Amino acid sequence: MPKIAMIGAGSMVFCKTLVNDILATASLQDSEIRLMSRTRPKLNRMEAFIKRMIRENGAPATVWSTLDRREALQGADYVIVMIQVGGLDAFKIDYQVPLRYGVDQCIGDSLGPGGVFRGLRTIPVLVDIVKEMETRSPNAVMLNYANPMAACCMALGKVSNVPFIGLCHGVQTTLDLISRYVGVPKEQIDFLCAGINHMAWFLSLRDKRTGRDLYPTLRRNIEKPEYYVNEKVRCEVMRHFGYMMTESTGHLSEYVPWFRSSERALKQYCDRPDFGGASGAYYKYCASLDKKYRDVDYLAYENPKISRRSVEYCSYILEAIETDGPFRLNGNVRNDGYITNLPQGCCVEVPVLVDRRGIHPLRVGNLPLQCAALNQSNITVQTLAVEAGLTGDPEAVMQAIAMDPLTCAVCTLEEIRRMTAEMLQAERPWLPQFKGKTLRAAQIISIPKHVRPVDVPLDPALAIANRFGELASRATRRGGKRV
Amino acid sequence: MPKIAMIGAGSMVFCKTLVNDILATASLQDSEIRLMSRTRPKLNRMEAFIKRMIRENGAPATVWSTLDRREALQGADYVIVMIQVGGLDAFKIDYQVPLRYGVDQCIGDSLGPGGVFRGLRTIPVLVDIVKEMETRSPNAVMLNYANPMAACCMALGKVSNVPFIGLCHGVQTTLDLISRYVGVPKEQIDFLCAGINHMAWFLSLRDKRTGRDLYPTLRRNIEKPEYYVNEKVRCEVMRHFGYMMTESTGHLSEYVPWFRSSERALKQYCDRPDFGGASGAYYKYCASLDKKYRDVDYLAYENPKISRRSVEYCSYILEAIETDGPFRLNGNVRNDGYITNLPQGCCVEVPVLVDRRGIHPLRVGNLPLQCAALNQSNITVQTLAVEAGLTGDPEAVMQAIAMDPLTCAVCTLEEIRRMTAEMLQAERPWLPQFKGKTLRAAQIISIPKHVRPVDVPLDPALAIANRFGELASRATRRGGKRV
Amino acid sequence: MPKIAMIGAGSMVFCKTLVNDILATASLQDSEIRLMSRTRPKLNRMEAFIKRMIRENGAPATVWSTLDRREALQGADYVIVMIQVGGLDAFKIDYQVPLRYGVDQCIGDSLGPGGVFRGLRTIPVLVDIVKEMETRSPNAVMLNYANPMAACCMALGKVSNVPFIGLCHGVQTTLDLISRYVGVPKEQIDFLCAGINHMAWFLSLRDKRTGRDLYPTLRRNIEKPEYYVNEKVRCEVMRHFGYMMTESTGHLSEYVPWFRSSERALKQYCDRPDFGGASGAYYKYCASLDKKYRDVDYLAYENPKISRRSVEYCSYILEAIETDGPFRLNGNVRNDGYITNLPQGCCVEVPVLVDRRGIHPLRVGNLPLQCAALNQSNITVQTLAVEAGLTGDPEAVMQAIAMDPLTCAVCTLEEIRRMTAEMLQAERPWLPQFKGKTLRAAQIISIPKHVRPVDVPLDPALAIANRFGELASRATRRGGKRV
Amino acid sequence: MPKIAMIGAGSMVFCKTLVNDILATASLQDSEIRLMSRTRPKLNRMEAFIKRMIRENGAPATVWSTLDRREALQGADYVIVMIQVGGLDAFKIDYQVPLRYGVDQCIGDSLGPGGVFRGLRTIPVLVDIVKEMETRSPNAVMLNYANPMAACCMALGKVSNVPFIGLCHGVQTTLDLISRYVGVPKEQIDFLCAGINHMAWFLSLRDKRTGRDLYPTLRRNIEKPEYYVNEKVRCEVMRHFGYMMTESTGHLSEYVPWFRSSERALKQYCDRPDFGGASGAYYKYCASLDKKYRDVDYLAYENPKISRRSVEYCSYILEAIETDGPFRLNGNVRNDGYITNLPQGCCVEVPVLVDRRGIHPLRVGNLPLQCAALNQSNITVQTLAVEAGLTGDPEAVMQAIAMDPLTCAVCTLEEIRRMTAEMLQAERPWLPQFKGKTLRAAQIISIPKHVRPVDVPLDPALAIANRFGELASRATRRGGKRV
Repeated sequence: MPKIAMIGAGSMVFCKTLVNDILATASLQDSEIRLMSRTRPKLNRMEAFIKRMIRENGAPATVWSTLDRREALQGADYVIVMIQVGGLDAFKIDYQVPLRYGVDQCIGDSLGPGGVFRGLRTIPVLVDIVKEMETRSPNAVMLNYANPMAACCMALGKVSNVPFIGLCHGVQTTLDLISRYVGVPKEQIDFLCAGINHMAWFLSLRDKRTGRDLYPTLRRNIEKPEYYVNEKVRCEVMRHFGYMMTESTGHLSEYVPWFRSSERALKQYCDRPDFGGASGAYYKYCASLDKKYRDVDYLAYENPKISRRSVEYCSYILEAIETDGPFRLNGNVRNDGYITNLPQGCCVEVPVLVDRRGIHPLRVGNLPLQCAALNQSNITVQTLAVEAGLTGDPEAVMQAIAMDPLTCAVCTLEEIRRMTAEMLQAERPWLPQFKGKTLRAAQIISIPKHVRPVDVPLDPALAIANRFGELASRATRRGGKRV
Repeated sequence: MPKIAMIGAGSMVFCKTLVNDILATASLQDSEIRLMSRTRPKLNRMEAFIKRMIRENGAPATVWSTLDRREALQGADYVIVMIQVGGLDAFKIDYQVPLRYGVDQCIGDSLGPGGVFRGLRTIPVLVDIVKEMETRSPNAVMLNYANPMAACCMALGKVSNVPFIGLCHGVQTTLDLISRYVGVPKEQIDFLCAGINHMAWFLSLRDKRTGRDLYPTLRRNIEKPEYYVNEKVRCEVMRHFGYMMTESTGHLSEYVPWFRSSERALKQYCDRPDFGGASGAYYKYCASLDKKYRDVDYLAYENPKISRRSVEYCSYILEAIETDGPFRLNGNVRNDGYITNLPQGCCVEVPVLVDRRGIHPLRVGNLPLQCAALNQSNITVQTLAVEAGLTGDPEAVMQAIAMDPLTCAVCTLEEIRRMTAEMLQAERPWLPQFKGKTLRAAQIISIPKHVRPVDVPLDPALAIANRFGELASRATRRGGKRV
Repeated sequence: MPKIAMIGAGSMVFCKTLVNDILATASLQDSEIRLMSRTRPKLNRMEAFIKRMIRENGAPATVWSTLDRREALQGADYVIVMIQVGGLDAFKIDYQVPLRYGVDQCIGDSLGPGGVFRGLRTIPVLVDIVKEMETRSPNAVMLNYANPMAACCMALGKVSNVPFIGLCHGVQTTLDLISRYVGVPKEQIDFLCAGINHMAWFLSLRDKRTGRDLYPTLRRNIEKPEYYVNEKVRCEVMRHFGYMMTESTGHLSEYVPWFRSSERALKQYCDRPDFGGASGAYYKYCASLDKKYRDVDYLAYENPKISRRSVEYCSYILEAIETDGPFRLNGNVRNDGYITNLPQGCCVEVPVLVDRRGIHPLRVGNLPLQCAALNQSNITVQTLAVEAGLTGDPEAVMQAIAMDPLTCAVCTLEEIRRMTAEMLQAERPWLPQFKGKTLRAAQIISIPKHVRPVDVPLDPALAIANRFGELASRATRRGGKRV
Repeated sequence: MPKIAMIGAGSMVFCKTLVNDILATASLQDSEIRLMSRTRPKLNRMEAFIKRMIRENGAPATVWSTLDRREALQGADYVIVMIQVGGLDAFKIDYQVPLRYGVDQCIGDSLGPGGVFRGLRTIPVLVDIVKEMETRSPNAVMLNYANPMAACCMALGKVSNVPFIGLCHGVQTTLDLISRYVGVPKEQIDFLCAGINHMAWFLSLRDKRTGRDLYPTLRRNIEKPEYYVNEKVRCEVMRHFGYMMTESTGHLSEYVPWFRSSERALKQYCDRPDFGGASGAYYKYCASLDKKYRDVDYLAYENPKISRRSVEYCSYILEAIETDGPFRLNGNVRNDGYITNLPQGCCVEVPVLVDRRGIHPLRVGNLPLQCAALNQSNITVQTLAVEAGLTGDPEAVMQAIAMDPLTCAVCTLEEIRRMTAEMLQAERPWLPQFKGKTLRAAQIISIPKHVRPVDVPLDPALAIANRFGELASRATRRGGKRV
């Protein structure tokens, strides 16, 4: 009877999907499902709906809900985290403040100013959960769905040895895309994918039946307008860096400096609507949903019949642990030597095997240098963001954003510092670790007209060069010895 | 009788300085100095001048010159490398081509397109030298002065175990500056400086006599216009990242994205003339010297009296090996665990001890995260440039430049690719490793007006959201249950 | 149509088993089996028998044989190595010479003088094979059955990046034993086993159905004479080091110093016949089989019907690669960080997953300290033996044996050196890498009666103590101040 | 005014030497010396003597004493530790109990049962000191003289990041010996020495003046009886392992298995009196001194004139930190990558540079394999002893001793367990971390005459062999087909 704590169970769509998957899985059918959220209304609706599912499908599972996280965690076997701290209010700040400074985010939940602040809000809560697990559910595994995935998982790996895995469906959805683009059913594609969350690389793509390399076909097709137009930025990165990766165009355009830092680039590469690259696409989508449906109980109209399992990895992982699997997936874990040219201790997304003994990441070795280079540019931001999230150091926040590939291509340090200060102030309600701290100001220093610079010693190299210049001019004055 | 091979002895100013230092050092006075260059005229002048020095000062040293590098290396104890491959002709391309693509370099010899290409030209020659040393002078130490220092030394560390050290005077000259800014004689400053060449961090600055931390004074002073104006960019980096570092403003402005990527930034931070930030300052300086003095024999007018040793580390290192030192300096070495949060095998600039047993770098441990972050952004470029320099892979050249912090803030990938192709073509004479290779083209793909995108599967997350949107709208249509 | 090269196909029993397994596996039924051996008679018998199997079972497979290893390797998908270099003649020396020096081996094929020399004979051949694979079958996987497993695999991992796995059935057979001892069917035992070949530790033993820890039962039972008597040494190691491991008593008694280094220990712990601890048990068994059956063609009388697959991992691994598995086993691989408190690059036996992408060892982390300690004592010997095997340095052979836990408990260094020299001489025909080299002699130095030792400076600590002794005696002489 | 805490200042000879050295050093003359011991009598005598020194030499230093360690540490700059926990009473047990089990120690303070127990007594006190330093003297450096050096320093490195160095004069005294044996003044010998305390290897020995390798002379001379007789065991290790090392014969004979585990070896190699190899030499020496002089105040008769600095490193280290050195020595530090083929985190003895910034160990890289092998055999014991010392796990004590090279060559596991239990019991007063714990017993299991072993499955390899034996015998019965 697996005990499954679902933390952030107000995440209605997602929670409902995962619970359906669990109930649809033989070895999990008698689970005890514990729904936890910080507030009631959505939690009640979710509990009511799951009760209905259980009843109408005659499932042996049980469900209960609580506002007390520690109650939910006590003795749990699995802890599934799908929290979103700050909700739409914080997200609005994440998007709108940077935009005023010229940082034009499309999604804004992973890297960049938006992603960094989402991390600052989420990390303290995740740390609390994992610390509580150490005493309340010492044998449990955490499945994390909270974003920003890489920074969150890096923080988890730094503060605890509780086993965890961070889950995302970027690999599956990209494989769907590739399947379509090369004309091979996805079940027939043998692939190796590794890197970091939202930037993992398909290092190998082969047809399982014949061993044929699928990259030549893929390379040929993405040059065709009807393919290219679907994923301009992703295709450009592949054209220049050689490998297909797991992030879609709008999102990817934020993680790298080349596509959103000028009008000219935006027009060329980010001209598709919505998630194809539009400014604030994800925030606007969320806001519109929220506006229309905030108070609607979707689930009251939903069919309670248990449906086929979704592609989400969650129920497959639980099943593999219960039944000894093995189940293979791509997951986010602490880099304990799995990718040898990315830093130890960062969060990597690698092939993982799950069986009764738990989560087993597989060693990948070195990534191609250019793939590691792009990953590293993001890991640098994540590392500083995690430091800031864990310590509450405002300087680290500013430095994380200053290293962000997109931000640094459009702002000066002075602007970044002002933007950071503004965001820290506005998001204060969700940032307990920064309580009582403010970011040091560093205004522009204006130079008075007739300032006399402090004199400084001459650089010795220049001094020598000058000496020779002097000799040389003496030589030429004397009409001397030209060779 | 130390046998000292000077490779690139046509570097007149520099070679003369080092030889003077050697002759001024008791334990090196009977050295056998071997001058090697690829062409004669300057080599002859240098040899003649040194012969004059030896004769007129009654020194026991000997000197001879050769065009045959292997002859110079045979049985050598020390190999001092000061080559510059491609000279002014190549440097012109390094500066002018990128400028046309919007990459406005001030110095252009370390990172950026100019630095990458200087590396591509230099690395094969350095590799040849170090490979010849393995058989011809197996006990020799290499002292490298060739730029780009970090990429060159990384390449050396990858291909050979010959002991080497890369030398630069950035630490000494910055210490002069700091001394002036805090009002403490430099001999009285106790410091720890570590990082990478041209971006090493003064992690600690104390008055030796009292133990007083000198940073508060330094921080206060750089806020004053008369100090700040001397080194705007360096001061800005310190204001935002917390530490003074070893690179001067004009040069530093190229290594980071915030100061040269927009008119507004250039005007604010790079408005000083010449090496203070002006476009092409170093190229123009070299060109003007060359124009005036190319055929002048400076040395014919130089006083052959041996003068006091300069601040260059070279003669001190040789002396320390001959006399068992120990001598301490900051030098560039392979990162065999000395800085633990920079990649193994990259080139780091760390405190080094020299004695009879050779070059002993000291372990520094972790740098502050934000310092490591900035170093890493440069190491990423160096790593790809070294790969390109060693293998002759044109893609790696393009990717190195694409990761350059300044370039990526002003160009798209397509522009970077075109620029790289143009430079590869123009510098072909000095790039033997790229013979017969060209960079793949990747033109802009234009989308016909009415193209019909290939259909692709719906992202499952969106599919679920849509399903709920549907339910929700059904609910609202029915005037249903709002909570 | 998998192409399977079987190197050492004269190993009749073993080769027949593996081929049967292959033919009994659906995805391997159309394999092309290439039998290679250095000499013909047994090879012909094997080929004839397999042809009979194929024919009488109507299998689609093909088989052919060759004396030319390169022919067998050309384009192979799998290379299965089951060579035994030197055969019974060498084995006789491995056992009998050490015995004369007091080193009493029971099996003598893994560690100790016998194991070291078996390694010296085998390593050069394995290196040749893997080097040939690099060019002839660059996509092939090697499955190695040759002993000494750990030293052989360490050598493979040092000279090549060809994927390989070393196979042994110690884990399976020990699990059978454990199953019997705790009364739980082996399919129901959830275990984690890791360490080195022949010394891997069952770090966890649980009942899959209930999660119950099986160690308490196991610990209780091995204290009972009727259990203990089966595996005295293995049980003793478990009693004192806390974990069950994969080696049987007779063999294990050789790897550690406590059971065969004195009459008293032999009598107490190695008093069971044959493989339970008897002197030369394995050599005598091989010799008796050889004597009786050397020229008999067993296979002529064997039923050619394909029988059920054996427990050998080989066919399961091939199947998993062909069908994408995944298949889990315990295998021997290069330690690329899998066990974090054993040396990088040694050979470890860890859980491994096999699928179409190949061999994926799983990360175990740290072993319990005392388990790592015992493993390390064997790895030390293996490391020196591999060095000797690869370089042909006779000193390394002597030092490997000097570090052997059993040998060093019974011999002096002088005896070890003489024994090594004798073995090197006797096994010369199988040791090409030692051609023209002899082990330096180091006879006992006898001290003439009235030798006058060279005078040496007094240890300063003693000098000080003496000075105080002097003071103190002065004090006491003076009847001085006692406190 | 350096504040120097001397912990264990009752160690009269040693403390007096160090204080004399300090007073004899210009930059330390105004030190504040704080003497701390757990009991008064000797402390008072020491303080009185130092006061006399200060007064009669007109030194500006001050001295005071305390029984309160925290008082001594408060605000200290240097903490010098020379404690000996348990004194002669514990030492007696360390020597006599093992002897009854056949473990015949000569010195017994570093490895073996005696060394392990000395470690168990000392580690908790050292841990307390270093933890107190973290808060009371956060800028202080610890100089540790307490034995067993390697285990103590490994423990320090595990529990704290306080800078420390472990000091011993083995390198200096061995260099004296080498100097005498090769006939070159020690100041003229250029050497590299690295390994672990009491087992560091002179990897290179050259004449500074000529560069001549001194090993050939040394190798020749140690074969001569008049040299060999001085250091039989040390010479034997050099003869068989190739390098001179830092431990003298009697002590070294305990760290390796070949010299004290049989009568025949003892007679051959350990036949010199006292520290040359005699049983209990060091214990007997201490006991005899104690007997004669326990209550004598040596210092009352000592000349208070400050004499020349001794060879002890202590005052040179303090001087180097005060004056910015640099000073080079060989010291014991945490292996943070200095010796790459010994475990990270163990204690290594390597070249160290000291200057104002502190203790800088130099990177050595890989030791010769056979040297690393011998070092590792000792590190294994140290690692388990440190674990036991820190955790109070009695099993780890037993396992540490079971892995001891000498003990394991003479005892069975059962004997080792009984010996350990006896020592744990006897030394209880000095082992607070084992309070309330006892070592599990594991008696000899006697097998009743007619016991019927539990049946176990047949090993599949044997099963197959049996099957073939059966076929073969059938074949021979039928007079069948011999080839």
